Amino acid sequence: MKIGILGAGQLARMLAEAGIPAGHEFVFLDPAESPSAARLGHHLRAPWQDADALQVLANCDRITCDFENVPAEVLALLSESVTVRPSARAFEVAQDRWIEKQQFEALGLATPAYRAVESRPELIEAVEALALPAVLKTRRMGYDGKGQFVIHQFEDLELAWQQLGGKPLILEQWVDFDHEAAITAVRSCDGDIRYYPLSTTCHRGGILRLARAGQGQSQLQQAAEHAMHKLMDELDYIGCMTLELFVVGDTLMANEFAPRAHNSAHWTIEAVPSSQFDNHLRAVCDWPLGNTALNGHALMVNFIGHMPEPERWLRIPGLHWHDYNKSARPGRKVGHATLTAPDAPTLNQRMADLQPLLDHDLRSMMQNLP
Amino acid sequence: MKIGILGAGQLARMLAEAGIPAGHEFVFLDPAESPSAARLGHHLRAPWQDADALQVLANCDRITCDFENVPAEVLALLSESVTVRPSARAFEVAQDRWIEKQQFEALGLATPAYRAVESRPELIEAVEALALPAVLKTRRMGYDGKGQFVIHQFEDLELAWQQLGGKPLILEQWVDFDHEAAITAVRSCDGDIRYYPLSTTCHRGGILRLARAGQGQSQLQQAAEHAMHKLMDELDYIGCMTLELFVVGDTLMANEFAPRAHNSAHWTIEAVPSSQFDNHLRAVCDWPLGNTALNGHALMVNFIGHMPEPERWLRIPGLHWHDYNKSARPGRKVGHATLTAPDAPTLNQRMADLQPLLDHDLRSMMQNLP
Repeated sequence: MKIGILGAGQLARMLAEAGIPAGHEFVFLDPAESPSAARLGHHLRAPWQDADALQVLANCDRITCDFENVPAEVLALLSESVTVRPSARAFEVAQDRWIEKQQFEALGLATPAYRAVESRPELIEAVEALALPAVLKTRRMGYDGKGQFVIHQFEDLELAWQQLGGKPLILEQWVDFDHEAAITAVRSCDGDIRYYPLSTTCHRGGILRLARAGQGQSQLQQAAEHAMHKLMDELDYIGCMTLELFVVGDTLMANEFAPRAHNSAHWTIEAVPSSQFDNHLRAVCDWPLGNTALNGHALMVNFIGHMPEPERWLRIPGLHWHDYNKSARPGRKVGHATLTAPDAPTLNQRMADLQPLLDHDLRSMMQNLP
Repeated sequence: MKIGILGAGQLARMLAEAGIPAGHEFVFLDPAESPSAARLGHHLRAPWQDADALQVLANCDRITCDFENVPAEVLALLSESVTVRPSARAFEVAQDRWIEKQQFEALGLATPAYRAVESRPELIEAVEALALPAVLKTRRMGYDGKGQFVIHQFEDLELAWQQLGGKPLILEQWVDFDHEAAITAVRSCDGDIRYYPLSTTCHRGGILRLARAGQGQSQLQQAAEHAMHKLMDELDYIGCMTLELFVVGDTLMANEFAPRAHNSAHWTIEAVPSSQFDNHLRAVCDWPLGNTALNGHALMVNFIGHMPEPERWLRIPGLHWHDYNKSARPGRKVGHATLTAPDAPTLNQRMADLQPLLDHDLRSMMQNLP
């Protein structure tokens, strides 16, 4: 099929990497000059609302997205002439943290306490209601820790307001989690859902650094699948979705969801028969869903800012290399590596072999993984 | 790295599919208008000797090939300015069946008896020496059963000569094999060799139809690895190579080798941590070689002539779909599917589920696999 993707970043790139072997062709709309996916299909370099570009996309067999902040009106317009998956509805919910939290509540999913904030007095009122520390976030357009401010004490309030005030905001209760986790699932147009195993995730400065899969407890997995089931059915969702979670003891709290492929599930490319990218395309194209069972154990390491030299990394057995062909820039996700192993002791040994190649911060994060 | 490939067929396409995630870029030289790999890189549509095209290739970091009949002088010319892997030597041997057989003999590898044939009297003499049935083949440019004639009785001789005479030929003794097999291995520039497990192969009309891996006997595997080791070291080979074999009882006879990725090892894409395409590029780029151990069992089915509809196939768990985006044409390889399973009983069950989707001929071939 000819598949149009709004956005041509690394997620679009990995969608194309999964879809080209199966014979799909790709068209990307992205205003960037030379985005990561551009060489894997026809790159329309234009603003999101560009009429000529949208006309080209309207002639595709399917439309999907590689990021959640696609303008809703663009999706609505395209929906008139081509099948758009997932539908605009999921984006509307995911694009606004306040609506998203309300959706979680409506479905009975535990989520941190929150308050909408539009003014200084509302911020003070919200802080008094939720107590500190708390996290002030823009309701819209936040990602990778952007648009967030952790308020530790009352004196931080003014700085937080200066940085984020003027836009619709949300204050969220600070959750003293044991660790973070994420679950990815895929839903087909006839409501079939397949769940990937939970991964344990580790962030720094709001950016995902590590994700490990294969250590999951069946009780948490069940709870996560239950939450996903409710959310996907409610949104009549088609494609892959990731729900980010806080793990507190043996309970889960829903943090946010992404209506697209997600960084925390990149290890599915090598460690699962049908990766999140493969299954997203299967769902989008009305193909039967593929197997999501994990073969063994996996760890994913993000490369932030620049790519390391591959030779030393590739000497470690089970190491898979992903370079998004993006130019180096501080804080930018430019690639990742996935380490696979048939069992936990072997993965632990390979992680130990990896340690000398990591910076201090990443090394300590890896050592502290649950 | 920027990798130039001579040829842009499905093997080049699958090399690019393996190399793009790792950040490599591809340039293809192929005189065809719209070959299978063209969209995955920069396609130079030109004759093999075209000076401008060769100039572009000379600026790549590495050169490799997707077929063995690349003109030797093109490889020699490129070698003056860029690293070409495997080297011209392996191609010179593989391009001529008579030289290839002499190479096998020189290394002490069992191979069917053969005679060079340049004239009618030489053909009669060769038939008398080797007895019938025997196979008359062109020494050069044969593939997928092209340029071959099986002589069953003395009366076929004239027809065989009419079809193939005038070119340098070779007559090969007919081998009454139990089945055919193939081994693929990869050798790095420092002589490290990794072997994939043997696959059982099944041909019709000279074209590979099925390949199954995971049933290997350790004695045959050892013998095959021994043969590959000798051949690769002798040629100081860098990259992936496949040796096609006849299995007769518990012995092997070398049939022919291919100095490139090979159809009989396509199942390595899903069933092995590092596929033949991934490992070929690792060797070509001086990267450390990857793991070649088979996870479970695998069966590959070639699609010849046209692609079937994917939906019914993809309902079978562990089914992976490959469509080369080639137009339908009788006898043309247009795609393949690989069926993977954790163990032999599961693979057998999935093969049984596949049976109703196969034509009569393929079904009986699958039932008769050893």
